[in-house]
Amino acid sequence: MLRIADHITRQAHRHPDRPAVTFGREIFTWAVFEKRCWGVAAMLHDLGILPGDRVAYLGLNSHRYFECYYAPSRIGAILVPLNIRLSVAELVECVTDCTPKALIVDPDLVNEGRSIASACPSIEVLICGTSDQGPDDMCSYDQIVGQHQSVDPRCFNELASQDSDTIIIFYTSGTTGRAKGVMLSHTGLFTNAIGVPPLFGLREGETHLLAGPMFHLGAGSRVYSALMLGAHTVLLPKFDVAQALMAIEQHRINVIVLVPTMLAMLLEHPQFGEFDLSSLRLITYGAAPMPIALLERAMVTLPDIQFGQAYGMTEVSPVLTVLTPDEHDPIGRAANRLTSVGRPLSYVDLRVVDSTDRPLEHGETGEIIVRGPNVMNGYWKQPELTAEALRGGFFHTGDAGYLDEDGFVYLVGRLKEMIITGAENVYPIEIENVLSQHPAVAACAVFGLPDDFWGETVHAVVRSKAGTATDEATLIEHCRSHLAHYKCPRTVSFRSEAMPLSSSNKIDKSALRQSLLNSREFSTITDT
Amino acid sequence: MLRIADHITRQAHRHPDRPAVTFGREIFTWAVFEKRCWGVAAMLHDLGILPGDRVAYLGLNSHRYFECYYAPSRIGAILVPLNIRLSVAELVECVTDCTPKALIVDPDLVNEGRSIASACPSIEVLICGTSDQGPDDMCSYDQIVGQHQSVDPRCFNELASQDSDTIIIFYTSGTTGRAKGVMLSHTGLFTNAIGVPPLFGLREGETHLLAGPMFHLGAGSRVYSALMLGAHTVLLPKFDVAQALMAIEQHRINVIVLVPTMLAMLLEHPQFGEFDLSSLRLITYGAAPMPIALLERAMVTLPDIQFGQAYGMTEVSPVLTVLTPDEHDPIGRAANRLTSVGRPLSYVDLRVVDSTDRPLEHGETGEIIVRGPNVMNGYWKQPELTAEALRGGFFHTGDAGYLDEDGFVYLVGRLKEMIITGAENVYPIEIENVLSQHPAVAACAVFGLPDDFWGETVHAVVRSKAGTATDEATLIEHCRSHLAHYKCPRTVSFRSEAMPLSSSNKIDKSALRQSLLNSREFSTITDT
Repeated sequence: MLRIADHITRQAHRHPDRPAVTFGREIFTWAVFEKRCWGVAAMLHDLGILPGDRVAYLGLNSHRYFECYYAPSRIGAILVPLNIRLSVAELVECVTDCTPKALIVDPDLVNEGRSIASACPSIEVLICGTSDQGPDDMCSYDQIVGQHQSVDPRCFNELASQDSDTIIIFYTSGTTGRAKGVMLSHTGLFTNAIGVPPLFGLREGETHLLAGPMFHLGAGSRVYSALMLGAHTVLLPKFDVAQALMAIEQHRINVIVLVPTMLAMLLEHPQFGEFDLSSLRLITYGAAPMPIALLERAMVTLPDIQFGQAYGMTEVSPVLTVLTPDEHDPIGRAANRLTSVGRPLSYVDLRVVDSTDRPLEHGETGEIIVRGPNVMNGYWKQPELTAEALRGGFFHTGDAGYLDEDGFVYLVGRLKEMIITGAENVYPIEIENVLSQHPAVAACAVFGLPDDFWGETVHAVVRSKAGTATDEATLIEHCRSHLAHYKCPRTVSFRSEAMPLSSSNKIDKSALRQSLLNSREFSTITDT
Repeated sequence: MLRIADHITRQAHRHPDRPAVTFGREIFTWAVFEKRCWGVAAMLHDLGILPGDRVAYLGLNSHRYFECYYAPSRIGAILVPLNIRLSVAELVECVTDCTPKALIVDPDLVNEGRSIASACPSIEVLICGTSDQGPDDMCSYDQIVGQHQSVDPRCFNELASQDSDTIIIFYTSGTTGRAKGVMLSHTGLFTNAIGVPPLFGLREGETHLLAGPMFHLGAGSRVYSALMLGAHTVLLPKFDVAQALMAIEQHRINVIVLVPTMLAMLLEHPQFGEFDLSSLRLITYGAAPMPIALLERAMVTLPDIQFGQAYGMTEVSPVLTVLTPDEHDPIGRAANRLTSVGRPLSYVDLRVVDSTDRPLEHGETGEIIVRGPNVMNGYWKQPELTAEALRGGFFHTGDAGYLDEDGFVYLVGRLKEMIITGAENVYPIEIENVLSQHPAVAACAVFGLPDDFWGETVHAVVRSKAGTATDEATLIEHCRSHLAHYKCPRTVSFRSEAMPLSSSNKIDKSALRQSLLNSREFSTITDT
């Protein structure tokens, strides 16, 4: 009985009048939230959704999204959060893959919803996430939910999915190849929801700000841990620096989860110092490598706030390791711990292996593979890809890293991002860390460019800080004073505008690389 | 993939040379422990044990017992720890109930083993837990295990029990009625093993002393949490004060789990002050109500040691609430928190209800009922008793208590121990707490005696401290200065010898009560 939705009833019983979710001006107590969740389950049931059916969701963060993290599983159905940053063609690809019976869309995404539905005959029901009437060809979410709020959820007990059943499918944001639907279970999400909070020191009844997109599990997993903790979650529709700062002040936020880019945007906001952030006691970060310079700066700027780091990915529900707030202390910093992503959770069997899956020694870099109750059920309808990813019983993360003698994990990059130059392996993050320590560098991205002689050469794209000046030779020299010669960029290009971001707020290196290849006409160069 | 035995492989990979278990002079590293566990699984498999079969174990604590907490589940079998304090007739009752195919016995319990086997035809295999040849009619545990240590455990992957399968059955020590076999799953035991340690502040790689009997889950659950933490467990065959003190000094023990009686015995030991206990940093206690006077005394005597309390029972794998070390601090003490058993674990839905299962308000006393992934699968072969205990989806603990506004749980006693005197409900523990604060009282037990007029009257059995003198009237007067008149004992009897203990080291009130009824010939009194 790990079923995650059952815990809503627990909180509704224990703290009926405490706020569960705040969205805009609306505050939903646990009692109201519970009623609405079962109303959504009843709505889906009435609309013909059967156990095992998929329900897709296309929208920004909202209390409705929060409800849909739970409600479908109550009748055995599976939620599919869709990435709103994808094109309609990409969305159709995901939806064609998982063939949902229903699609829930935000009011300002009804046209996209119609386009998807017309391309995907599996969709029988379109639901508009609105409190008013909504378009004629769609059901109105709130109106139907309102009609079902007196439903006793126990009438669905026979339908509810079991511990190991898939309750949610996330499509991963791989930029190449067929979209992969990651199938996650109650067991995995529950394990994460009770395993991670104690390591961050999260406490019962605190107020969390959730500003990251709920169509990714990095933010979404906090929906489940908030439930286990009885926390109050304040939702922003999407991340906006000014709104996040205002929300922290207005709602007396205690805990916020950020990706490094968001943290940088907060610190750089011109009005940063004008907000009352005194309620904030913990910032957790993850989902992308944290530049040391940024973290050090944040710790100096916000000396009273604790920091905690999580490393993981969708396929593991999603956390594998945590660098605890204690490990961010001066002793940890002296031991160079801030460059680590922390230690594996107590239930995660994490190993570093070579290309034949043989374990490596401490300090040796290889692929990180993991086993545990938090590992996905597999990729939807892709048994071969699943078998490949889970070969030998371990999920192969595709991340390169090493372990130290104390069990701390250090990442060196994606195996696929690894640059091979002159038969040497170079991981971009190492160079990015050095570059970002240079006072003139605001942001940077390192990747390989094709080269006839070296195979690849190391290239860096740099955005300079306002009011500073630097050049290619200076930055290369800076790298050479910290890194082996072969790791240093051979070329550096500069851009004045912000880095392009992927749908998960990471710097989109493949876009950078492609535009560089186009502009430089590398084909011509390599022909000479 | 919550299967608890899989985590042995994790520790054996991560820390092959660290000690896992120390028993007597033998130290077993994680690598050796893993090999032996799979050797036990292979042994059982070769002896014809099939998935679902039961394997009973009759013995004191040992590394073999530790191995058997895991090995049977690896081939889908179920361990049944037997209480060595039971009579052969009582053991036959348990074994007849669960019909194991194999019985493992300690060398000095071979006669009991033979008696049980001859009364229980289900037992096909007798195994003697010895490293030498053993008796002719039994297999020698170590010899067969030694032959199987090169087995690759993956050959049993198809047999291994699944998350929700029963992997262990404990017979509860109810003194009346048919023995109840509590069926526990990977899911429940895993949840407890990852949910409890963070609340106690248990850390990776510490050394634990396990001196309580492994045929009870109070001590036994630490077998699983030690695995999750990669802790080193030092086992004593059974609790012995002097040996426990010596073991703390010799093995530099960091954490020890005690029932209150054991703690009292430690503090009262004449050589208590002569041992080096400086390694000890945490004492966790539970399994019986902790007299406040004893806890206060322990905290004063051991000011550098932290204390943590767990409350639960076998049916919930076994912890429901924890009073954390922080909550034992001066602020918690000022708030009278030491009289609480703490707050429910994050995954436990705990409610206080009246006799019709309707929830009560804060401060109102009723039965504690609970729901969560840690609740048992049921009582073995007793579907009606199971349905009764789990009615409405909640396990009914039989404990009476209340919740305060902060969610702390206060126990007032067993529903069945409740004394009804003149239509007032009296819970013995409240009186016992007051009596034990009297300087002349070394130990006490309160229960009801039959009375024609009042229904029951409150009676106290008291053992005086050496060198003190008191009498019935003095102690009744002491109670009247602290308690409502109807709660105070109407009669007090004194004994000079130690209180009789049940098999779980709790004061055996039913024995006390029975001997009192026999000696006083209450039948005569009530006839007059």
